[in-house]
Amino acid sequence: MDSVAPIGVFDSGIGGLTVLRALMACLPGEDFIYLGDTARVPYGTKSANTVIRYSLNNLDFLQRKGVKMVVVACNTASAYALPTLQEISPVPVVGVVEPGAREAIRRRGTKTVGVIGTRGTIKSRAYERAMHALAPEVVTMGWPCPLFVPLAEEGMVEGEIPRAVTLHYLQGLARAEPRVDTLLLACTHYPLLYDLLDHVANSIFAAPVTTVDSASAVANEVSLTLEETHAACERSDGGRVDYFVTDLTRFEEIGERFLGQPISGVTQVDIG
Amino acid sequence: MDSVAPIGVFDSGIGGLTVLRALMACLPGEDFIYLGDTARVPYGTKSANTVIRYSLNNLDFLQRKGVKMVVVACNTASAYALPTLQEISPVPVVGVVEPGAREAIRRRGTKTVGVIGTRGTIKSRAYERAMHALAPEVVTMGWPCPLFVPLAEEGMVEGEIPRAVTLHYLQGLARAEPRVDTLLLACTHYPLLYDLLDHVANSIFAAPVTTVDSASAVANEVSLTLEETHAACERSDGGRVDYFVTDLTRFEEIGERFLGQPISGVTQVDIG
Repeated sequence: MDSVAPIGVFDSGIGGLTVLRALMACLPGEDFIYLGDTARVPYGTKSANTVIRYSLNNLDFLQRKGVKMVVVACNTASAYALPTLQEISPVPVVGVVEPGAREAIRRRGTKTVGVIGTRGTIKSRAYERAMHALAPEVVTMGWPCPLFVPLAEEGMVEGEIPRAVTLHYLQGLARAEPRVDTLLLACTHYPLLYDLLDHVANSIFAAPVTTVDSASAVANEVSLTLEETHAACERSDGGRVDYFVTDLTRFEEIGERFLGQPISGVTQVDIG
Repeated sequence: MDSVAPIGVFDSGIGGLTVLRALMACLPGEDFIYLGDTARVPYGTKSANTVIRYSLNNLDFLQRKGVKMVVVACNTASAYALPTLQEISPVPVVGVVEPGAREAIRRRGTKTVGVIGTRGTIKSRAYERAMHALAPEVVTMGWPCPLFVPLAEEGMVEGEIPRAVTLHYLQGLARAEPRVDTLLLACTHYPLLYDLLDHVANSIFAAPVTTVDSASAVANEVSLTLEETHAACERSDGGRVDYFVTDLTRFEEIGERFLGQPISGVTQVDIG
């Protein structure tokens, strides 16, 4: 594999930028190509067949760009399309579900994991299946929290409204038995609400809660895969990112909050 | 025109069901074909060219079904695509913007209209241009309220959270000068929040506010157009509705709240 080739990252829109952020922090010498399928966002409300078809379009686009690896930085696409993508792709394909699931059960004390995400991700039970395969003794509970995505996109991540919405969702989970000790953020938008979620969960849950998000776990997995396949770039910094979107929207404006730094040089492409 | 032919109604998803609801109440003998482009929802975040292309697909589908008229029950599609659709279509095409604008300025006392809607609709300034063309002396103010759509879709239309979000948005509008006397709901989702919006506006605005939504205005316009073109159905009740969607999602479940009655017999179609 060509070690100077870029790493491809795709998502239905901007949420995957939290994963890109972790990747850039972990692998500062690597080049990245980010594809946001903003013309067809969101994937979470679409059927499995549609999500697989769109994901294949995205993979095809990234392959034409000569990437050495593909990161599916989208929970819905990871849940529904990963096996298909891995079967077809000549380069490794890493999703967000498996690393996130592994991270949630990694600690010794983990007994019960509350999985919060969009309705689509929770309905797919992808995280729960991944955790059960790794640690059958761990109890898991899926808990859809659909309003967190629009709150994150609106930049409403602190204050009265996000706090009321967080209480609304987590109060039910706080009453569940057995008691949740680990909160897994199974949505790429949720890291923007990390502080609030962690704070509220630790205020209202009976026992201390560890809040886990999959972005840094994905970055570690990508780093390991690069080492194993001798595909890591030898530079230690100076990597660049090229951004592609399928529709010009507020990608740069909203994306900046997700990436934690300004975004420039976004190109619109037709991949349909 | 064939008076027994159905009336076609399209929207990007489920919001247009509030318009269909008003149409069914006003024209109980007519047959309707409702098309929700659920595979490509939402339109509000997409570029004008993309919205026009999708709207042409929708028009084409409805025409093949032999409709006698087309109602564009989507604010974004009405704002961006109506002139193109009207130029191409052999049958009349009615949007939601013009009737809503006319309804807002119809009352004698209307001086200042606050227009609330999605970011896309407000940015298009379509309602404001329509009102200025009809009544140049009326002052208009656009006010984006993006969180109302996910709240309506989640069925969160009363209680602490919707009230806090409503206060958050309307407090700014309440301070605006000149004082708003009319609140125009420029989004097909907002009728679900009508009572809350009307109540909060009349609690915090300095003067009484009339809250107007365009659904019933659209129904009146369609009724008039049918009379003028001698295309009204002669039955006084017993009309039926056929539903088509471009992706099978939670259309029936969520849609029921928008339509105000159960939805059955939804067919998935590929129109892309």
